[in-house]
This record gives sequence, structure tokens and C-alpha cells, in this order.
Amino acid sequence: MKKVAVVLSGCGVFDGAEIHESVLTLLRLEQQGASYQCMAPNIDQLHVIDHLKGEVAQGESRNVLVEAARIARGEIIDLATANPADYDALIIPGGFGAAKNLSDFAVKGPDCHVNPDLLAFAQAIHQANKPVGLICIAPAMTPLLFGEGATCTIGTDQETAAAIEAMGGQHTNCLVDDIVIDEQRKLITTPAYMLAGSIIEAASGINKLVDEVLKRT
Amino acid sequence: MKKVAVVLSGCGVFDGAEIHESVLTLLRLEQQGASYQCMAPNIDQLHVIDHLKGEVAQGESRNVLVEAARIARGEIIDLATANPADYDALIIPGGFGAAKNLSDFAVKGPDCHVNPDLLAFAQAIHQANKPVGLICIAPAMTPLLFGEGATCTIGTDQETAAAIEAMGGQHTNCLVDDIVIDEQRKLITTPAYMLAGSIIEAASGINKLVDEVLKRT
Repeated sequence: MKKVAVVLSGCGVFDGAEIHESVLTLLRLEQQGASYQCMAPNIDQLHVIDHLKGEVAQGESRNVLVEAARIARGEIIDLATANPADYDALIIPGGFGAAKNLSDFAVKGPDCHVNPDLLAFAQAIHQANKPVGLICIAPAMTPLLFGEGATCTIGTDQETAAAIEAMGGQHTNCLVDDIVIDEQRKLITTPAYMLAGSIIEAASGINKLVDEVLKRT
Repeated sequence: MKKVAVVLSGCGVFDGAEIHESVLTLLRLEQQGASYQCMAPNIDQLHVIDHLKGEVAQGESRNVLVEAARIARGEIIDLATANPADYDALIIPGGFGAAKNLSDFAVKGPDCHVNPDLLAFAQAIHQANKPVGLICIAPAMTPLLFGEGATCTIGTDQETAAAIEAMGGQHTNCLVDDIVIDEQRKLITTPAYMLAGSIIEAASGINKLVDEVLKRT
């Protein structure tokens, strides 16, 4: 049975992992007969967003791993302790957590850095010639994770696409129900909620992404 | 287009709405061409559980509506402001939030009470002869919401089943991929994560539940 590492960035679209994208990813992995292990960095979130008001919850702080455990029903490990050799592939769902916790892309744009635990893990997976799938805004980390010239999509947002290109990546516009494949690097990306207006729309691209990731294991 | 009220009880299996069950419910509603409105009571959670450790997070407090907004991507309303006439059906996903926030069943068992906003909303839906679906542990509220003799399932847990019967309900054992229907009262229930060992298993019963709820609108 193929085993996929799924890196979560918290729990909630505005400050963590996008919940629908995360669940759809796990569901599709199960449907395709793969197993998975959720993992997340053991760090504080950039901030906490009140998802009702859409505003920063002043004075609150939450831990990425602890909150991501909500999506994983407690079945989650610290990304720093994960052994890349144990996995056949890596998938990173989106949500602002990918740009606020896994990296600081939301704050620094093309000058961003990636969390060192994620950097080490993702590059080890990549160097072992295993496929990686990135969803929604997570592909903004592509150039930092996989080097200049790596091709990805975040949909059609021109500002984000320009930032990716400024970092050395190659951006390809993509519809919500489609994926972009960097065949040489075994990188699969899809816009999901960068464009999706419904769970079905997000699922249409995510299902393709999971299938293509598994095909390349 | 049929419109379904989905009442959430927070965000996370141990102190709120079960995330997989909630997303699977919304996904199936979309797949069947129905629309939905998420809603939750504007109250504090019973407590906050650290989902990594499985322990109470001492000193933390969170609001049910604010946390449920994470699952709904901010598209949620206060249950107290929802008009039952606007909806064709009601579905309540599970998670301990149904027994800790929507009711105090987790603390008081058969002596529990239901949140007054939920009681008023659910009874108005029911009295208008509209169908109601309850998932996982949420059916424990059945006798209080829909009166003595109402039939439901929480799977096969004998202690919980006995508590439901002590409250005047009728419990029927049920497999994870099946549902129990109280045809007279238009109540549909399914065990989901009371028994499920995977998202696919949870989905098997939830999909049937959503389909049967919609069929009776």
C-alpha cells in the first residue's frame, strides 16, 4: 500500500490548512487505496483569525501542530520527526496556513522563506524522485522547495503568479478543475480554493492531483 | 433548489463538530444539487480539547459559532437568527460538540438538556413536516428534540443506546454504512464515526443519510 505524507498548516482557511481541501485530499487517497500520515510543524501560527469576523483575534495564539490535529482526529505527527524514507509521496493542501505558517509568503512575497522542517522533508522526498502535490496557495513555495525553473499553478491570480516568477518559478494559468504537471520534477499543482466557488469545484482539481501523484509513486 | 440548514457545534471531533462528517455532509449536498446554510449557536464551548494530546486545554475558551466558521469558511450564521421557514431540511453532523455544546449529553447522559436555540429551530423544522438528519452522536438528542418514541441509531454502543432509551427514544443498532429511518417523523440517523475507522466508511453512511433527507423534502 502506498503511503503519502500530508503536511497540514493548522485548521481553517484564513490562518491554517483549508479544511475542505485537506479532507478532500485524505478522502481521495483512501478512495484510491493509499494510506496517509498527517504531519505539521510544531510551531506557533503567525496569528489567529476569527473566521466569523475575518479579523485577527488579538492576544490569541495557537500551535500549528495542535490545531492541525483537529483535521487529523489526533492522528498526526510532528513534521520534524517524520522520516522521508517512510513515504512514497508528499501532498500539501492549501489555506493561508501554507503562506503564513509553512512559509511567510503572505507577509514577504517573493522574499519569503520556508519553514526549515518542511524544507528538509520536502527536498528529501523530491531528491528521492518521489512525487509532490501542492494545492491552492501552497505552490507559491515551489521555487524555494524545488529550485528555479520548477513549473506550478496557483490558478490565474496575476500578482501571486508574478511573485512566483520573481522567485525563479514558472507559473502556468490553470482552471479550477485542472492540474499543472512538471513532469521532470514530478510536481503536481492545482488551484482549488484559489478559484473554487464550491466544494465540488475544489474536489474536481484535487481528485486529479491525488490521482496523478499516486500514478507517479 | 432545495436548501438545507446544517448545524455545526464547533470545529474538531473532541470538543466540536467532527470535521470529516461536516465536510462530507456539505459535499454530498452539493453533489445532489442542494444548497445549504451552515449555522451554530453563539455560545462558549464546554471546553477546549488539545487534539494532539487528547487533554483539556486549561484556561482556554472558544466560541462555538466562531470555531464552526472555520469549517464553513466564514459563511455561517448564528443559529438564533435562522428562520426555519427558509429551509427544506435540517442536518446535524456529529463530533463531541453535539454532546458538549449543542446539548450536555456528554456530561449528564439521560438527564441532559438541548441548547434552546437548537431546540426551537429543530422543533419548528420538524413541526413543518420537514426531514431531519442526525449523524454520529447527534442522534442522542433525538428524544428531546422530537419526543418519546422517536427511533434513531448511534451505531452499537450499548451504554449510549441505553441512555437514549432512558430518555424515551427507541434505539436501533446500525452498521457504519447504513442508516435508520423513522418514517413517521422523517428522522434519518447514521453512526458515522461512532463506528467508522476511515473517511470512506463515514462517507458511506452519510451519503445515504443526505440522499434520504433530500428525498423527503
